[in-house]
Amino acid sequence: MTDRAADLRNFKAAAIARLGAKYVLSGSDAEAFEHDFWKQNCGRAACIVEPTTREDVQFLVKLAAQYSISIVPQGGNTGLVNGGIPDATGQQVLLSLKRMNQIRAVDPAGDYIIVEAGAILAQVQKAAEDADRYFPLGLGAEGSCTIGGNIATNAGGITVLRYGMMRDLVLGLEVVLPNGEVLDLMRSLRKDNTGYDLRHIFIGSEGTLGIVTAAILKLVAPPRERVTIWVTVSTPAHAVELFRYLRGEFGDLISSFELISSYGVEAACTHLPGVRRPVDQPAPWHVLMEISWSFREGLRARAEGVLEDLFEKNLIGDGTIAENEAQRQMMWRIREGQSEATSKIGAIVRNDVTVPIASIPELVDRVMSWTPEFGQDVVCLPFGHIGDGNLHMNFVVSRDRFQDLEYRLLEKLYSDVDQLSGSISAEHGVGRMKREAIAKRKAGMRLELMHKLKSVIDPDGRFNPGVVIDPKFEK
Amino acid sequence: MTDRAADLRNFKAAAIARLGAKYVLSGSDAEAFEHDFWKQNCGRAACIVEPTTREDVQFLVKLAAQYSISIVPQGGNTGLVNGGIPDATGQQVLLSLKRMNQIRAVDPAGDYIIVEAGAILAQVQKAAEDADRYFPLGLGAEGSCTIGGNIATNAGGITVLRYGMMRDLVLGLEVVLPNGEVLDLMRSLRKDNTGYDLRHIFIGSEGTLGIVTAAILKLVAPPRERVTIWVTVSTPAHAVELFRYLRGEFGDLISSFELISSYGVEAACTHLPGVRRPVDQPAPWHVLMEISWSFREGLRARAEGVLEDLFEKNLIGDGTIAENEAQRQMMWRIREGQSEATSKIGAIVRNDVTVPIASIPELVDRVMSWTPEFGQDVVCLPFGHIGDGNLHMNFVVSRDRFQDLEYRLLEKLYSDVDQLSGSISAEHGVGRMKREAIAKRKAGMRLELMHKLKSVIDPDGRFNPGVVIDPKFEK
Repeated sequence: MTDRAADLRNFKAAAIARLGAKYVLSGSDAEAFEHDFWKQNCGRAACIVEPTTREDVQFLVKLAAQYSISIVPQGGNTGLVNGGIPDATGQQVLLSLKRMNQIRAVDPAGDYIIVEAGAILAQVQKAAEDADRYFPLGLGAEGSCTIGGNIATNAGGITVLRYGMMRDLVLGLEVVLPNGEVLDLMRSLRKDNTGYDLRHIFIGSEGTLGIVTAAILKLVAPPRERVTIWVTVSTPAHAVELFRYLRGEFGDLISSFELISSYGVEAACTHLPGVRRPVDQPAPWHVLMEISWSFREGLRARAEGVLEDLFEKNLIGDGTIAENEAQRQMMWRIREGQSEATSKIGAIVRNDVTVPIASIPELVDRVMSWTPEFGQDVVCLPFGHIGDGNLHMNFVVSRDRFQDLEYRLLEKLYSDVDQLSGSISAEHGVGRMKREAIAKRKAGMRLELMHKLKSVIDPDGRFNPGVVIDPKFEK
Repeated sequence: MTDRAADLRNFKAAAIARLGAKYVLSGSDAEAFEHDFWKQNCGRAACIVEPTTREDVQFLVKLAAQYSISIVPQGGNTGLVNGGIPDATGQQVLLSLKRMNQIRAVDPAGDYIIVEAGAILAQVQKAAEDADRYFPLGLGAEGSCTIGGNIATNAGGITVLRYGMMRDLVLGLEVVLPNGEVLDLMRSLRKDNTGYDLRHIFIGSEGTLGIVTAAILKLVAPPRERVTIWVTVSTPAHAVELFRYLRGEFGDLISSFELISSYGVEAACTHLPGVRRPVDQPAPWHVLMEISWSFREGLRARAEGVLEDLFEKNLIGDGTIAENEAQRQMMWRIREGQSEATSKIGAIVRNDVTVPIASIPELVDRVMSWTPEFGQDVVCLPFGHIGDGNLHMNFVVSRDRFQDLEYRLLEKLYSDVDQLSGSISAEHGVGRMKREAIAKRKAGMRLELMHKLKSVIDPDGRFNPGVVIDPKFEK
């Protein structure tokens, strides 16, 4: 047995003594933690540890330091960039926060909720709702992603337009640092200018600087009347113009403004059970929009008036307002089922790009015009949050050509995004998947400061090595 | 002549060669830059330099590095914690950003504005308005404070409740680092998860980590209908209850919710020309509230309905809605003239504390109950943004007792704030004034990480030494 194997064995023995054998997993029990959400990538951990308290986390971090073992923190394992799974060496310990899932308090007067990192997003939404408040983060994986993961990745989703990213919703934070000490920033205050704001260093750092163990999150007024509108337009340029017009009418009451292609809508209607198009005829492009306020009535009437204006001014082809919750759900099912529906047709080359809103039409035009160069079997499938400039310019390709095409399609897409001053990761993050692509796009001081932060907070490079930062800069 | 004097003389000569003698000031020309806003504190600079370009700033920073000279950046010099004026040594160079005041572009479609650091806040508000957009930062000093200063201090103000602090309004940032290199984060994107978010390290760091030279700021939908309401209540607890009730009615349409004491309102009516009480009778406490939306009509009618309910439910004593802009201005004049009015009565012990909203009544009760212990001539004058938990618990004292009382009153106030889990600097920042008081309140890792950040970004401690961070940790 090598020294390394002895170190890992000793770590495991001490972890079992602390947590119990049931919460230190390996072999087949570990598998669910080792592969990514899409089951396209798989690593191997030395073991999985499942703490239930912050003190457990501190114990494990200090124990790992003692044996120079790296730690990969994991929440609901719904990440899309391989930032929460171990590498292939079998030498990293995966620390799952899932069992730290308590909602500690909801304060409707102070408009905040105190949660542990492993609390499921949907659980937090529900707790807020039960207190007649609203936690305004919403995303496809909300039924299984955790708050800790949302914070570590600065999650976005379908209401960013109105409420911001996860970063904008964190009031207080508790972080276990690589030295095992606790950084206690657990305050519910809205304003606190007493020095550098350390929260934002950890939010979006994907577990490379600290392990989030608890947070205090902002709640907002619940949307008591919500109007969901589906319209069709002939081009993405018309969709952007429509967005501008409607923002003039509804201001910041617009919480979602989503573009979906004809191909995507028809795919959803064909491949998702029970789904049908909200408007009678196929159309080149569809827009799903939601507006809300905290009054109980009056918004729908205003929306109906605006919809009439849109018809009169020829700003839309067709359009309808959801009559009830079932119709609303159906509209959202088409939007959120885009990946599911198109994965029945072929393999999907996924991405998560953003450009300034005014450049969205050009991005879509460019990409759709060069897509055929890759072959008749490649279809570009743009959809996403154009209200904040974030589109998923996915491609559906024949399964047998996925390996061949993925890198080439993304490189060509990213080159357009660069030219339009965009970003190749709007909300999914860096992880291992995009580390190199992002590093080569960052100007000198930006990358240098990231390395400096990493080196000063995690000098031994033991927190999620290889994620976000190139490991050769970690020591 | 000592070496130090030669260094300063050489720096000055090279600065004059670059900027021209007109923009390198000393002696009486420098005085306006050397004393603070209230003219209570005064430092002395080696000279004042006034660059007009980012390249000038880089040149000056590198030049200062060459001679080991410290730099104090300054915007509109409206700070309240002595964070933007030099110390008394006459060895620091004050770098004023005032001449870098261009508004480079407004993009109403992308909802952003690109400005240089020296642009005046009111100028930025105006440019947004001219493009039918709204820049939602508002504060007393808006006619002279600069965007760079707002960013460096993470300014708050009267609309934080709805739109957040300055931190929440910064999309892109350009910073000159202590090594003279530029950190270019100038992007207008709403979402960009490509690594650590470096913006927030510099926002609120009060010029100790970098000099902000330009920024891209978020714009929002303009409030087309605005309703300003003045009501009276019998206690701060009733004001907090009222806030809770009205937030249930108006949700996030409330942009301001300000509490003012009877003493403060009467002082404004007595000492500010042309000001009179918006309601007939004096009352123990007054609340000034503003709600708005982007529709052109309908909110006032809703507000009138709610006001009737408030009377019926006995939630207020008296109440009125501003009939026109002149009445609205009068209401705001009372609120914003609190310091001006009460400074006619005595000297003012200022502060800027915050506690969780639910604890506001207790804070006011506690402080008002012990205030008389300090003598008949000491009056507590609470006013401020209770919607976000931030109160100025000012004291009016006899001028001859100011020196004697200031420290003692603040220590006693801060001790209550500590006990109620608050913060002693909600929006004004740390500067030199609160550095020690704040350092002793911070838990271990929080202070340690601040020191680490400072040491890794400004290893020679030449950017605004003594501000925020104790200089003994700077090297």
